[in-house]
Amino acid sequence: MNGVTPDSLRSRVLPVALDAMGGDNAPDEIVAGAVQAVRERGVPVVLVGQPRALHQALLAHDAVSEIPVVRAEEALAMDEGALASLRRPRSSIAIACHLVRRGDAAAVVSAGSTAGVVATGRLRLRGQQGVMRPAITVPLPTRPHPTVLLDAGANADTKPEMLVQFAHLGVAYAETALGLARPRVGLLTIGAEPEKGSKLVKRAHELLSGTSGIDFTGNIEGDDLLTGKVDVIVTDGFTGNVTLKALEGSVRYAFGQLRETINESRLAKVGGLLQRAKLRELAARLDPEAHGGAVLLGLNGTVVIAHGSSRAKGIAAACELAAHLAAQGIVSRIGERIASANKSHRRR
Amino acid sequence: MNGVTPDSLRSRVLPVALDAMGGDNAPDEIVAGAVQAVRERGVPVVLVGQPRALHQALLAHDAVSEIPVVRAEEALAMDEGALASLRRPRSSIAIACHLVRRGDAAAVVSAGSTAGVVATGRLRLRGQQGVMRPAITVPLPTRPHPTVLLDAGANADTKPEMLVQFAHLGVAYAETALGLARPRVGLLTIGAEPEKGSKLVKRAHELLSGTSGIDFTGNIEGDDLLTGKVDVIVTDGFTGNVTLKALEGSVRYAFGQLRETINESRLAKVGGLLQRAKLRELAARLDPEAHGGAVLLGLNGTVVIAHGSSRAKGIAAACELAAHLAAQGIVSRIGERIASANKSHRRR
Repeated sequence: MNGVTPDSLRSRVLPVALDAMGGDNAPDEIVAGAVQAVRERGVPVVLVGQPRALHQALLAHDAVSEIPVVRAEEALAMDEGALASLRRPRSSIAIACHLVRRGDAAAVVSAGSTAGVVATGRLRLRGQQGVMRPAITVPLPTRPHPTVLLDAGANADTKPEMLVQFAHLGVAYAETALGLARPRVGLLTIGAEPEKGSKLVKRAHELLSGTSGIDFTGNIEGDDLLTGKVDVIVTDGFTGNVTLKALEGSVRYAFGQLRETINESRLAKVGGLLQRAKLRELAARLDPEAHGGAVLLGLNGTVVIAHGSSRAKGIAAACELAAHLAAQGIVSRIGERIASANKSHRRR
Repeated sequence: MNGVTPDSLRSRVLPVALDAMGGDNAPDEIVAGAVQAVRERGVPVVLVGQPRALHQALLAHDAVSEIPVVRAEEALAMDEGALASLRRPRSSIAIACHLVRRGDAAAVVSAGSTAGVVATGRLRLRGQQGVMRPAITVPLPTRPHPTVLLDAGANADTKPEMLVQFAHLGVAYAETALGLARPRVGLLTIGAEPEKGSKLVKRAHELLSGTSGIDFTGNIEGDDLLTGKVDVIVTDGFTGNVTLKALEGSVRYAFGQLRETINESRLAKVGGLLQRAKLRELAARLDPEAHGGAVLLGLNGTVVIAHGSSRAKGIAAACELAAHLAAQGIVSRIGERIASANKSHRRR
């Protein structure tokens, strides 16, 4: 975390509300992640979920006195979608959002199903004033720093004005989470020239070109996602989600093919053994858990969506990211950007 | 090529009209590709382009008498888009299309800019009766056979009914080019359940579920593109193009990272040297040129769009693919499918 927090203030830092029942490895790995976040990263956490199960899990870490538990008897299953969030107002993710809403927590972390977390977040935290739609923001593994892609799936149908707002959200994220001074923004489409693309992106291109406070560098194409050409990539939630999954799938494919190729010959296999340590390093860098997960931006509170298969390390990283974004005031930064953009829009 | 062509008929096989002026390596590599197609693959070719340049290039292969040349003094530059096709009615790609139109060639091959080839093809060959829009069809490098993705970029804005037609085009291609008996069709979207996705794909899902002659297996997601789960993947041209480029970019990224990782340590470098031969094999399999290129389907004639950077081998493969599709009557197969679909649609 950037900035200095004097000891006198540290006790007043709000905890991260961690949905202990969401994710493939809940609650054990979630609780283990909470313990790591508190002990190794200095991030205060409150666990939200079924008290008896959480007490058991905390006992195993001798951490009952360190991490408070807020009761939520219900939980969203991983295969439950958006509708379940309406049916279960007392689910662990709903209660976690409620804690932020009433000022008892700084941010929410959940490894639950993305659809369920997004729907519950929208319902319980509500959109920030002036924000048309929240967007899922994900870091792509470029170097020297990640590239931010949004929307990665919260909105399947998008208007051009929403894409402009996503640019503001993404810039606020890049400034806050990555410490970039003047993030470059690109619009994902099917050709470098301004007139290329769907009606949606052509109109968005026009709007972005005239938007102050956004360093819009123009169109980018699918093969620029991992080149670090821009810092923030704006797209609709349909394209963003398909593309992101395509990236994951193809990196997995490339390494799978490579493994197969290596295993096919004895000599190449020897080579593979020599490389094993280096490949492990590479795998760690590409590991989505290392970055803390996706962030749902545009609500009255920050929601970090950890990967459903997250283990303790991933959960701890997600808690640290959530605490960092909250401490840096990302919600009010977004509020200021949107208010200023809406004001200058009305003036025209 | 499948099927047996008796010698008595061989002389009547129409040649492939090859745009000799399109592509980064035109005309030399294009002419070299024509020579390979004729001599090594038994595919008759007619070159379309600037006669003097082509004569020179053919002389170098001692192939002046083997490969006829049709004059076209103009050419579309690689950076010219759709509008140039209107401005240049006598470009090499326009003349190549004209040869097909008047029955003097079986199909067109060009390594020119995709936008220029698509626009010229639409203008000169016109859409097949009943086909709303032509679509760019590309093979993805799955095994044991490629997976067909369409539309890869001809239509940035698409209606649900067009996606259903793309399914018909893709099935005709998979039957013809890959010899598949009952290709499985998937719809690219952002969740496995039928209700997931944009308005466009949700409606397309409904339509495809009730379409006879299509083995529709439901939604697929971005990470299924390279798993071979389906044989034909249907999507709009915007998503298809972005996704395809994302795939190319990320495979390049993964191998780049790997190379970097290998080079970082001396020990791993030794391993890398041992693997070099195996990696070359893998690279060859992933090489898009090996598959002959993208195909523009739905016009009154088949147009194969070879990669802009194609060398002789890629051009020869593209000519063979074009000849094969034409010999198998893909245009009339598509015509029958669309006619039957439109008929059953009117009956309802």
